[in-house]
Amino acid sequence: MVRVMATGVFDLLHPGHLHFLQSAKNLGDELVVVVATDATVRRRKHEPVTPQEMRREMVAALKMVDRAIVGREDDIYKTVEEVRPDIIALGYDQTFREEDVRKELEQRGLKVQIVRLSKDQSGFDLDGTRKIISKVEQGLSFQKQSSAVEKVVKAGGGQDGRAQKEPEASAPSTSSKGRARP
Amino acid sequence: MVRVMATGVFDLLHPGHLHFLQSAKNLGDELVVVVATDATVRRRKHEPVTPQEMRREMVAALKMVDRAIVGREDDIYKTVEEVRPDIIALGYDQTFREEDVRKELEQRGLKVQIVRLSKDQSGFDLDGTRKIISKVEQGLSFQKQSSAVEKVVKAGGGQDGRAQKEPEASAPSTSSKGRARP
Repeated sequence: MVRVMATGVFDLLHPGHLHFLQSAKNLGDELVVVVATDATVRRRKHEPVTPQEMRREMVAALKMVDRAIVGREDDIYKTVEEVRPDIIALGYDQTFREEDVRKELEQRGLKVQIVRLSKDQSGFDLDGTRKIISKVEQGLSFQKQSSAVEKVVKAGGGQDGRAQKEPEASAPSTSSKGRARP
Repeated sequence: MVRVMATGVFDLLHPGHLHFLQSAKNLGDELVVVVATDATVRRRKHEPVTPQEMRREMVAALKMVDRAIVGREDDIYKTVEEVRPDIIALGYDQTFREEDVRKELEQRGLKVQIVRLSKDQSGFDLDGTRKIISKVEQGLSFQKQSSAVEKVVKAGGGQDGRAQKEPEASAPSTSSKGRARP
């Protein structure tokens, strides 16, 4: 049985993640995924959108993943010692220096093969999370525009001209404030 | 073999989706998920962040899902005829009127049990997508602030005090307006 280990952030899953993980799984029989802690994400990339336990749960639910665990802060090689993989699969864009990893593993007496996946194997949409975030942003600005238009229509455009009295009432978020007290 | 069918948008997967789908799967042996088309999403809710084929691919990758297909526009009951489920699982917050669905299925001679999942079964985080989107928004505004701060630091905070000439450059959203015309 060949155990493969892959690591990543896995914030907002997208097909690029699926391709990376499937390619990793194809290297062996069992795939263990190590999900980066929130602290590690903050240190390396950006503020995570979803917390580490949620990211772990989502990855664990994927068909090609046999086990997903949250990584550790102090010593990433301890995770390798615990998982005891035969292969570590590195994504095309993962910034680990293979030589450094190889040396450190050897020094600790860990016999692990390092496989760098090709660009294609690592997912057709490497920049997926960023693209999704930018789509969310577009969607939000679209929603804001629509509700701004709605406000204008409600406030001044009604056929009976009623709403000119209480223009504030048509602004969303303020509606719950003005409730009568019991 | 009991076939269960569940439907949804499944835009930006989150643990609420996992719980809903696992509860649906628990009703039988096989789970077929029908993913709403982009046009349907637009008509009912909002602009989808990820396109229908991507949403289908993500749902199909989940362990509890045996098959995921994209729905159709014209006649949702034709999908039921194609999938031929024994059970249709409705989420707690899905707005189908059970009675209408039941009648229509009967008229078409389709023997399907409708099961409305409880709030708990439908996922502990029903409003998950919206929460994730709002987190993305927070993250974005944080990033914008940081880069605005960075610009200020770069522009004016340097030890040589060079950039006091262009105060406009540090204001985010206005920076694209004031570009010099060719």
